[in-house]
Amino acid sequence: MVLAGAEIALKRLPHLKFLMFGDEAKLKPLLAKYPSLEAVSDIRHASQEVMMEDKPSVALRQRRDSSMRLAINAVKEGDAQGVVSAGNTGALMAMAKFVLKTVRGIDRPAIATYMPTQRGETVMLDLGANIECDEHNLVQFALMGEVFTRILFGLEKPSVGLLNVGIEELKGNESVKKAAAILRDIDLPIRFEGFVEGDDLAKGTVDVIVTDGFTGNVALKTAEGTARLLVHFLRETFKSSFFAKIGYLLARRSLQRFRDRMDPRRYNGAMLLGLNGIAVKSHGGTDALGFSNAIGVCHDLIVNNLNDSIKHELALFEEAMSGLENAEQEDVAVPVGQAN
Amino acid sequence: MVLAGAEIALKRLPHLKFLMFGDEAKLKPLLAKYPSLEAVSDIRHASQEVMMEDKPSVALRQRRDSSMRLAINAVKEGDAQGVVSAGNTGALMAMAKFVLKTVRGIDRPAIATYMPTQRGETVMLDLGANIECDEHNLVQFALMGEVFTRILFGLEKPSVGLLNVGIEELKGNESVKKAAAILRDIDLPIRFEGFVEGDDLAKGTVDVIVTDGFTGNVALKTAEGTARLLVHFLRETFKSSFFAKIGYLLARRSLQRFRDRMDPRRYNGAMLLGLNGIAVKSHGGTDALGFSNAIGVCHDLIVNNLNDSIKHELALFEEAMSGLENAEQEDVAVPVGQAN
Repeated sequence: MVLAGAEIALKRLPHLKFLMFGDEAKLKPLLAKYPSLEAVSDIRHASQEVMMEDKPSVALRQRRDSSMRLAINAVKEGDAQGVVSAGNTGALMAMAKFVLKTVRGIDRPAIATYMPTQRGETVMLDLGANIECDEHNLVQFALMGEVFTRILFGLEKPSVGLLNVGIEELKGNESVKKAAAILRDIDLPIRFEGFVEGDDLAKGTVDVIVTDGFTGNVALKTAEGTARLLVHFLRETFKSSFFAKIGYLLARRSLQRFRDRMDPRRYNGAMLLGLNGIAVKSHGGTDALGFSNAIGVCHDLIVNNLNDSIKHELALFEEAMSGLENAEQEDVAVPVGQAN
Repeated sequence: MVLAGAEIALKRLPHLKFLMFGDEAKLKPLLAKYPSLEAVSDIRHASQEVMMEDKPSVALRQRRDSSMRLAINAVKEGDAQGVVSAGNTGALMAMAKFVLKTVRGIDRPAIATYMPTQRGETVMLDLGANIECDEHNLVQFALMGEVFTRILFGLEKPSVGLLNVGIEELKGNESVKKAAAILRDIDLPIRFEGFVEGDDLAKGTVDVIVTDGFTGNVALKTAEGTARLLVHFLRETFKSSFFAKIGYLLARRSLQRFRDRMDPRRYNGAMLLGLNGIAVKSHGGTDALGFSNAIGVCHDLIVNNLNDSIKHELALFEEAMSGLENAEQEDVAVPVGQAN
């Protein structure tokens, strides 16, 4: 699947080169089946592999010669400009964080992906890397998510919303309320639209939805599950009568476009944001086409210098924050002066 | 909408009687249009109404003569056995909590509703009454949700799952992990199935899904939004070509059943669980059919003595908890004895 996906990606992006990490004895004959891919690939032998059931801490300590770890090391050492993996997400995050380290100014990396909406596509983060987040994490996610979305969709000024349980300012937990206050007050070019709710994900109300990893993970999986449920109901519907079957046959081409539009392979490629290096997570259960899209996402982030843009954004943010803090101090100073 | 809904409910449940709270001058001529409903209804005049934009605290202090407050008072005073409202959720929760008080053993009430799944229907709670929940809240939600589901679906032993970001025991926040430990260890007839994820909602993996109000609210609205998105895509699909239009016409009857199956009016009627009294929240944007379903839910909970069952369950729980604590003390005593 990985090699077939790389082959598809190479057709689209002929300047790509690959380092393939894995068991050389297995990889070599497989790669020989894709001559054009073989011509631009180097095999790097790995004596271990990370298992899907490995805990992140175990993977980190005991899989130092795994394909995943060696691929991340290659990014660190500058041999590769980005890594794409369809393996264990927790292990990938733990290893990438350990090896690549977070960008200065980012406390914790986040996982971001994009999904179809009524208005096009929306990016959501975090999707599970951080179970509990304070306001600073959320603000950092907003900044990183905005840069990611700008690059991925070529948008000049993507809109950003904070996921909450209501649009009234009084609702929500402390982190969400404080993060909103920072994003509202700060003097940054970021287009912050305030709070959004669960249904704004599918509406596409904003281009970037920021949330903690617990909520984001539940929301993403709930959306995926609901989409599958409706497709399941629809399939039953078209089998339920003779006329429905004929109707299905007539509408088949259009329904295929409907399925293409929802195709999870189109949305394959979750990004680990905030690290000194590009790391993209492909869904484990995808096929070659899905994997080629994850490679495509990795390529776009490399050529558009995602991390330089994130660093630039963070520098602007720090400047704006210190401006904000100075302004607050001045505000405080006034009544004191009056009291005297 | 409310009166037309009550009329539909009355046809289904002819033993119902209604107290109608509102502006008498407006209500009386309206009610006269439904003679059979009028015959079993008393109008109770309310000089105020709770606005959709009222904050809960404002509604509580300043809307003491509103239809919502008077209807809740009627439950407290035993004039009514349950209240159904399509008004402001936050205000309804605040007033119901203030007037009816929580059942002994329940720290905070929760909002529960049910939704379609691949296996039938699943109940989820909390949906937004409690933004931050500790393990005791979650355990109480599990007990109340189990009783609610037993009554609503007539199930003997509904299965219960805790919403989390992964099924591995190491994942999730502290409240979720601790709640799971309590539900696993306790000697209760409750059928606790451990952790479930966002996509288990649509799969119907368990009958009851327990979560905090923040996550539950986001998950519910994400599911609703995704369902609407797919219906929107599907509508566009059937308009996209001549053959698709003909196909739609042929499959129309079956597609109507598909829509019926997803019809949010069927799932209208969220329950405020854990109060000394039955209070059901209807969706504000529903129609008469939807509202009649909320009345139906209220009726079922009344005739099945929801609150007595919850109290019974809580008594069993307290007994089991003290058993658990004693057992833990004994466990601790053993090594001490050995050390001597």
